[in-house]
Amino acid sequence: MEFQYNLPVNLIFGRGSVSRIGDIAVDYGSKACIVTGRSSTRKSGLLNRVAEYLEKAGVESVVFDRVEQNPLTTTAMEAAAFIRQEKCDTVIGLGGGSIMDCAKAAAFLSVNDGDINDYIFGRRKSSLALPIILVPTTCGTGSEGNGFAVLTNPLNGDKKSLRCNAIVAKASIIDSECMMTMPKSILASVGFDAFCHCMEAFISKIGQPLTDMMSLQGMKLIGKYLVPLYEGQCSLEAWDALSWASTLGGMVIHSAGVTLPHGMEHPASGLRNIVHGRGLAALTPVIMEETISCCAEEDRKKFAEISRCIGGTDETDCAAEIRGLLDRLQLSETLTGLGIREEDVDWMTENCIKVSAAGISCHPVSFSRSQIRELYRRAL
Amino acid sequence: MEFQYNLPVNLIFGRGSVSRIGDIAVDYGSKACIVTGRSSTRKSGLLNRVAEYLEKAGVESVVFDRVEQNPLTTTAMEAAAFIRQEKCDTVIGLGGGSIMDCAKAAAFLSVNDGDINDYIFGRRKSSLALPIILVPTTCGTGSEGNGFAVLTNPLNGDKKSLRCNAIVAKASIIDSECMMTMPKSILASVGFDAFCHCMEAFISKIGQPLTDMMSLQGMKLIGKYLVPLYEGQCSLEAWDALSWASTLGGMVIHSAGVTLPHGMEHPASGLRNIVHGRGLAALTPVIMEETISCCAEEDRKKFAEISRCIGGTDETDCAAEIRGLLDRLQLSETLTGLGIREEDVDWMTENCIKVSAAGISCHPVSFSRSQIRELYRRAL
Repeated sequence: MEFQYNLPVNLIFGRGSVSRIGDIAVDYGSKACIVTGRSSTRKSGLLNRVAEYLEKAGVESVVFDRVEQNPLTTTAMEAAAFIRQEKCDTVIGLGGGSIMDCAKAAAFLSVNDGDINDYIFGRRKSSLALPIILVPTTCGTGSEGNGFAVLTNPLNGDKKSLRCNAIVAKASIIDSECMMTMPKSILASVGFDAFCHCMEAFISKIGQPLTDMMSLQGMKLIGKYLVPLYEGQCSLEAWDALSWASTLGGMVIHSAGVTLPHGMEHPASGLRNIVHGRGLAALTPVIMEETISCCAEEDRKKFAEISRCIGGTDETDCAAEIRGLLDRLQLSETLTGLGIREEDVDWMTENCIKVSAAGISCHPVSFSRSQIRELYRRAL
Repeated sequence: MEFQYNLPVNLIFGRGSVSRIGDIAVDYGSKACIVTGRSSTRKSGLLNRVAEYLEKAGVESVVFDRVEQNPLTTTAMEAAAFIRQEKCDTVIGLGGGSIMDCAKAAAFLSVNDGDINDYIFGRRKSSLALPIILVPTTCGTGSEGNGFAVLTNPLNGDKKSLRCNAIVAKASIIDSECMMTMPKSILASVGFDAFCHCMEAFISKIGQPLTDMMSLQGMKLIGKYLVPLYEGQCSLEAWDALSWASTLGGMVIHSAGVTLPHGMEHPASGLRNIVHGRGLAALTPVIMEETISCCAEEDRKKFAEISRCIGGTDETDCAAEIRGLLDRLQLSETLTGLGIREEDVDWMTENCIKVSAAGISCHPVSFSRSQIRELYRRAL
């Protein structure tokens, strides 16, 4: 048994806890840049409330609201320029995964010179970033629990994460009340993303005792609460459980990494700007079927455990249970349905090998280039 | 569900990993003070090896080797003065709990002025300390996994912990090979200490999902491996499991706190300098019997889970199973046997209320002053 666990999270969890953001932020600075999306936090009133909480605590704030789905490296650079121009000393990410990732990258870029792509591909390193506070408004990404920020390079479609402990939030406020206005279709796709984080970390070759237990717990909670919540059986307990499972998913991938579902999805959404959770929905069952059919004997019990978390019996019905979960979430997808074309397969295959080398190497079965190509084909 | 989880650990776990200490330390400074005990790390050769690893990496080192069992506030002050005098920029704690706690406190005191007791009792605060690297040589305290340093004030016997995130180690190297020279009687008492950390955090009123799962896992590992290891059925797997369980125990009390067993033991070892694990052995069964007999209905299942970790069935045999565990570890103690006298009971009771207010308030049953006195009496 050999591992490193280095994740300096500060999680503030509980309904209503977003009201404490002023008292939290004042410890880190006097002028915050709130990074958010174009509309939802404005519509729900959350953006205004956060600005008011900050003001009450004596923290000035400005808003950068131009983050898109699958945020671009160029958007993060824009946000960083805005942060520098406004002389902010703290960055608050208020929104879903795209927004939190963009906020994290902007906090990093605002104090580090050079090309973001050099940092993403590990050619340059830095341990500096402005202090970051995150408030997730979806329960999927888990970005509030790790040091990853996934960005897409608009020049070449590379979708890959900046990874360093400098962008682990100084405080993450996980308040399920901020998530309850999420549209149902978003809940389905982010919930499945969270499930994949837990599952991929659980099967990862670099999983470790702490991530194993957290992943398993995350999958159990998602297995128990996601579908009922999606079907309208809402309870505060279910919202809490799902938001916690999502944070667990973010935490586990920080140490255990992701495997092939995320590794193969990033090229798809990097190329065609599809919804990440839907891309995962198209790819994951196909990848899992193939993986389970040819994994090592000792890995089988892991797939059995996954299956049991979502209502199955053992490894033989694991892939079918994943399909069943997607079906109940009305998330049975194909890549073709999402706008991917057959001629994209070769590009995605090569790009997967380029941007997802770590995910490929953590996967419990080693798939070759041609096997990855075949998996993309089957998911069309 | 409401909680905060803020524990910036960096755990480097694995047999042989102590050989990496030079490469790790060089990131934090150029001159390390190795805080250790009077003899065991010298006898085992570990101290020399660590100094050599540091030297190879270009890190100079000096040794402070005057730490005693139940380290005194004055010893930590002495160590801090030595660190300042030697102009060290890093502190390495190499040893068991007493040593790591002293190292942590010395790293804190070497950069903070004023009376250590003010920091311990929360009248002053600081977020500064020299960078700390910890290498546990026992599997009990878990000090490598938290921001606590328990010290005893020689003037009044107050045994209480300094608690802050500044003294969470920048790196903890958990190498079970460093523990294998431990005498069996030490293994028994530190192993039971680790069990208590997990159990107390598990029943604590401020427990939370992450600490619950880690505590339970820690108790399961201890239940499975401690007695066999004590009885000589040594395996690398067992050493790894116990050292990991011990770190888990340290991590969980950081967030969930301890309850009455630790709360009542500190006055005993503060007054009479007894071995901490033996003090726990004398007090814990008595406290647990009383607690289980009058706890709330919803707490019963927690005691049932504890019982099952150590071979029992449900809450009704939990205290008996704890006695059984102690028996197998040849650790069935009474306070009298450890040198505590009947006339100490009143002092310990008052001191418990003074130094262990948090532990008393986290305990699942609220015990009054007279009930605490009665529990001490029964443990005599």
